[in-house]
Amino acid sequence: MLESGENNRTELEELGEFGLIENIAKQVSLKLPTSVKGIGDDAAVLDYSSGKTVISTDMLVEGVHFDLSYVPLKHLGYKAVAVNLSDVLAMNAIPQHITVSVALSNRFSVEAVNELYAGINMACATYEVDLVGGDTTSSVAGLVISVTATGIAKEEDIVYRDGAQDTNILVCSGDLGGAYMGLQMLEREKEIFKENSAVQPDFTGMEYILERQLKPEPRKDVILELQRLGIKPTAMIDVSDGLASEVLHLCHGSDLGVSIYEDKIPIDQKTFDVAMENHLDPTMCAMNGGEDYELLFSLDLKDYEKVKEHPLFKVIGHFTEKTDGYTLIAKGGTTHPIEAQGWNSFKQS
Amino acid sequence: MLESGENNRTELEELGEFGLIENIAKQVSLKLPTSVKGIGDDAAVLDYSSGKTVISTDMLVEGVHFDLSYVPLKHLGYKAVAVNLSDVLAMNAIPQHITVSVALSNRFSVEAVNELYAGINMACATYEVDLVGGDTTSSVAGLVISVTATGIAKEEDIVYRDGAQDTNILVCSGDLGGAYMGLQMLEREKEIFKENSAVQPDFTGMEYILERQLKPEPRKDVILELQRLGIKPTAMIDVSDGLASEVLHLCHGSDLGVSIYEDKIPIDQKTFDVAMENHLDPTMCAMNGGEDYELLFSLDLKDYEKVKEHPLFKVIGHFTEKTDGYTLIAKGGTTHPIEAQGWNSFKQS
Repeated sequence: MLESGENNRTELEELGEFGLIENIAKQVSLKLPTSVKGIGDDAAVLDYSSGKTVISTDMLVEGVHFDLSYVPLKHLGYKAVAVNLSDVLAMNAIPQHITVSVALSNRFSVEAVNELYAGINMACATYEVDLVGGDTTSSVAGLVISVTATGIAKEEDIVYRDGAQDTNILVCSGDLGGAYMGLQMLEREKEIFKENSAVQPDFTGMEYILERQLKPEPRKDVILELQRLGIKPTAMIDVSDGLASEVLHLCHGSDLGVSIYEDKIPIDQKTFDVAMENHLDPTMCAMNGGEDYELLFSLDLKDYEKVKEHPLFKVIGHFTEKTDGYTLIAKGGTTHPIEAQGWNSFKQS
Repeated sequence: MLESGENNRTELEELGEFGLIENIAKQVSLKLPTSVKGIGDDAAVLDYSSGKTVISTDMLVEGVHFDLSYVPLKHLGYKAVAVNLSDVLAMNAIPQHITVSVALSNRFSVEAVNELYAGINMACATYEVDLVGGDTTSSVAGLVISVTATGIAKEEDIVYRDGAQDTNILVCSGDLGGAYMGLQMLEREKEIFKENSAVQPDFTGMEYILERQLKPEPRKDVILELQRLGIKPTAMIDVSDGLASEVLHLCHGSDLGVSIYEDKIPIDQKTFDVAMENHLDPTMCAMNGGEDYELLFSLDLKDYEKVKEHPLFKVIGHFTEKTDGYTLIAKGGTTHPIEAQGWNSFKQS
């Protein structure tokens, strides 16, 4: 996890918007050859002349996407960047630039903003992207972060969601369900703390699932390894809303059906154990949990040999004709339809 | 002004996030040769291979940047795009693409979102840009819109803030102060309405200043005309925070001083009249009002003949050495230092 540096408190109004921008700009430096001009003019200037540009954007809203009672600001900054880079990587493109817009209420101090940007900068350093612009403004209540990320790729390398074939295998990177279990543990400890603030949270042994939730790592390593192996997925998506929802996106995009084998779904032992202790089905955590930011993709059968024993990849099923439907084949051999639980942030609970 | 089409009400939760995205995607079509792939994958794919790319982003927060009690959603959508395109144009680049992220509370209906996007789409059509992506999410309270805009330009055509010379003239497009006077009138009528809701607002004769506030038009026409005339400004910025703040950005960027002649500052007759009626100094409205989205730029003296009688341009002053300072030369010949009032959105009033 990331260490916090917030000790003092300077009010935002002491700096004002220009002062805050200057304060942020001081923490930012450009490293990429594609960065011509960053913060400090009406717009940033970038060189995307060597290929195609991909662009993606996400907005995180306090009280909807994150809870600052247990998410440190540095982690929030890191994650806000990470989830956008994950989208760029899911196009088989290499992330290049981000812009970050932040709306802040007076509840936040300059030091808090610096914590947020420390996390943002750490993600930029880790994934070799340059922060080239943004906007800072006040909000009436709460924190809103909007990140836009770009990447570059040769046109022939870009992978969409609609290229899967009915003879393709379905491959997943990493493991699934951990971020969801981490969230459950954080929520549980928050409830306990609310009832009795003398009880300190006990997260011993849960470091892995907490890290999956608080500091997700988009799989640039997977994209680079696919390139090294000479593999181009036929379709790809990142797992932000759970395996079920994402595989259905690939199916609908490519007009196909799919079969997933439950016993092939990669679930970390710790995720499995904590799920069982909490009377949750680990498979359902992987299918519907979300926020794992792994990559899910379809491959031509000719690439099977290259990935079947590879530690970064797990073959979890195969595509079928659309009329065969969307099927989870359980460990016992029974079949269950795959349905997107989705996440309707507009639902009044 | 723009007509409203909001009559029915469909709750956001009836559509859910995917339904809402689909609903928005239906209203969007791609028109530019630089748009390879728009909404519907992890990221959009764009072709910026013919030059340099500029990127800019802005966030608008309800209760901070706009008041929906008098700003129609269609106008808000239009303006949210317009202010970003203005930044792209201020780089002497031609706008190409936007992404739009929106956080909405359940107070808003699907029809309200459609109104917002109708305005967004109208701005896209007017300025020939494609909407290629975005994010929609819920908010705990209020509406937040974040727009990221890109543009393209040849490297040698891009204009920064730091290129002005001490022999340059200072030129402004359009007229200034109108958007600020429009805002004052809207705020005044809101107060009257709060006290007595039977009193209908009387905006007769104020159409121009209201339009300046509610439907600002970024000056793509000015950029195209400069190109036609073979003029490249040495430095440029758009007027979003008032003439004083913007000219100081150019001065600081270029390490220069400036003299502005009060009698040259372009102020529309209606702006002037309404300011006087309300005991406001029209010059101060232009200097510190903001939101006019005109272009302010420095030109080499050799271009003076081309702009001096041109209806799109007004020569309002000249740059000086830095040691000469920042001076407003009043109509009576007295001099006043130019200071940025700025706008500190973090200030607790």
